[in-house]
Amino acid sequence: MTRKELFANIKKKKSFLCVGLDTEITKIPKHLLALEDPIYEFNKKIIDATIDFTIAYKPNLAFYESMGIAGWNSLQKTINYLEHYRSEVFLIADAKRGDIGNTSSQYAKTFFDKTSSGFDFNAVTVAPYMGEDSVAPFLAYKNKWVVLLALTSNKGTQDFQFQRIMTLEGEKYLFELVLETAKRWGSENNMMFVVGATQTEMLKDVRKIVPNHFLLVPGVGAQGGSLQEVVASGITKECGLIINASRSILYASAEKDFDKMAGNEAKLLQKEMEVELKKYGII
Amino acid sequence: MTRKELFANIKKKKSFLCVGLDTEITKIPKHLLALEDPIYEFNKKIIDATIDFTIAYKPNLAFYESMGIAGWNSLQKTINYLEHYRSEVFLIADAKRGDIGNTSSQYAKTFFDKTSSGFDFNAVTVAPYMGEDSVAPFLAYKNKWVVLLALTSNKGTQDFQFQRIMTLEGEKYLFELVLETAKRWGSENNMMFVVGATQTEMLKDVRKIVPNHFLLVPGVGAQGGSLQEVVASGITKECGLIINASRSILYASAEKDFDKMAGNEAKLLQKEMEVELKKYGII
Repeated sequence: MTRKELFANIKKKKSFLCVGLDTEITKIPKHLLALEDPIYEFNKKIIDATIDFTIAYKPNLAFYESMGIAGWNSLQKTINYLEHYRSEVFLIADAKRGDIGNTSSQYAKTFFDKTSSGFDFNAVTVAPYMGEDSVAPFLAYKNKWVVLLALTSNKGTQDFQFQRIMTLEGEKYLFELVLETAKRWGSENNMMFVVGATQTEMLKDVRKIVPNHFLLVPGVGAQGGSLQEVVASGITKECGLIINASRSILYASAEKDFDKMAGNEAKLLQKEMEVELKKYGII
Repeated sequence: MTRKELFANIKKKKSFLCVGLDTEITKIPKHLLALEDPIYEFNKKIIDATIDFTIAYKPNLAFYESMGIAGWNSLQKTINYLEHYRSEVFLIADAKRGDIGNTSSQYAKTFFDKTSSGFDFNAVTVAPYMGEDSVAPFLAYKNKWVVLLALTSNKGTQDFQFQRIMTLEGEKYLFELVLETAKRWGSENNMMFVVGATQTEMLKDVRKIVPNHFLLVPGVGAQGGSLQEVVASGITKECGLIINASRSILYASAEKDFDKMAGNEAKLLQKEMEVELKKYGII
C-alpha cells in the first residue's frame, strides 16, 4: 500500500485507528474455547466487527509465537481472512525484529514475501539498535514499510532512549538521534516511526525532526495516553498518525457479545478521530 | 542449565564452540531437497557431526520464520532432536526480541515455556533499546538466560552503539552504558552479552565492565573475526566465552559429504579452543 492509498483510506473511513491483534487465549470469551482454533475465531469476529472503523490491523507476533506452531497457524489464517479486506486495511506485523544484514533479509522475507512464508504484510516494526544494515533489507521491498522504534510508551524508555548523546551539532536524546539518522535510510513513503502516546510532551520535538512521516502511536487506552493530546502535537496535513488500540477493543467484553462491544469501542474511537480530522481540516 | 553446568561442559568437551543453525534452503546440498523436510534432515546431520566438538547450538529464528509454518515446524523438530543431547548442550534462540513488558512475557513463553510453545531453550537473544521492563520477563524464569545485544559485529554499530553518551561519571559509548545498566538487571548466572568478534579492540573495555559474565561472540569465520584475538582479550577463569560459527561449519561442503566436512570444521575450531583453554590454565 502506498502513502497515497493509506491517506485515501483515512479520508474514506474518517479514521486513523489501528486495531492491535494481541490475542491471548486466557482473555478471550470462554465459549470460543470449544472451537478448533479459538484464536482465529476470535480474530475473525473482531475483524468483522471493527472493519468499518479501522484503517489498519497490527497482530503482535509474540502472542502467536508463544503458542508455537498452533499460534503461527492461527496467525496465518487471520492474515488470509484479512485478504477479503485487503485494499482497505494496512497490515502491520508488530515483530520488533532487527539483526545483521543477511539475517534481516530473512526477516524481511518472513513478513513481505508470501511465496516464501505465506505472509504479505504492508509493514513490520523494527528495532534500531543494530543500525542501518539491520534495517536496509526491509526497505529493499517495493511498496513495503519499516516502522522503526523511536520513542516507546513503556517505563524502560528512561534507560536508553532518553539518554543524552553528544553530537557535532550539540547534545540530544538518543531517540532524537535515531529519528535523525534513520530518516535518511528511507523516505516518507517507506518509513514510519513508533512514538508512544504516553510521550505527548515529546511529540512536538519529534515533529521538528520528522514533520511529515507517519507515526504509529501505541498506548492510547489501556496504557493511558490521550487521543486528543496526541493529535494536537502530532497531526499533519495528511494526518500522519496511525493510533493503535489493542486491549481496550479486544477485551471490551468477555461474554458472547464481545464482538459487538469491540465494534462499539472501535466506533467510539473512530468518532473521536472524525472530530479531530474535521477540526484540522483534513476531511 | 546453570553456569556451573555450562562450565563443566566446556571443560569436558575442551570447547567453547556454539554452532549457529542459520539453515538456508538455497545453501544446503541438493540431494536433501527430495526429502520431506530438508531443513530438519540437514540440521540433524549437522548436529550428529558436530556434537562432540560443541557446547551450544544457536538456531537463528529468522531462517525458520522466513519459511512460515513449514519453517517453524522444522525448527520444532530440530529442537526435539536436540533433546537426545540435552545435558551436554546449551540451546540459544537467536531471536533478538524485546518489547513492552506484557509482550516480552509472551516472547519469554515462546522460548522458555514448553507447555505453551513446544520450546525449552536455555537462552534467548534480546535487544536492549526498550530498557529494563522489556528484558525483565525473560529473567523471571529460573535457570534461563538472557543474552543481551551489547556490541554487535556489523557495520551498523557506528550508527548508535558507538555514539557518545553523557553520564554523571563522564562520557562513554552507548554499548558501554548498555552493559553497565543491564548488568544490574540480572546476574552472572542469568545474563550474557553479545560482543562481536570483529570488536576485539573493545573487548578489554567490555571486560572492565563485565569481568565475569559470559559473552556470546559471533563473527568468527565468515564475518572475519580471529579466535585467538577474542580469547586474548575476553577469556576469564571460567572461560566466559561462547564463540559462535555458523556458515563456515554449515556450508563447509555442498556435496554429500557436507556433514563430514562440517564435523571437520567444528573439530578444527575445537582443537584451536583446546589450545587456548590449556594456555590459560582452564583445563
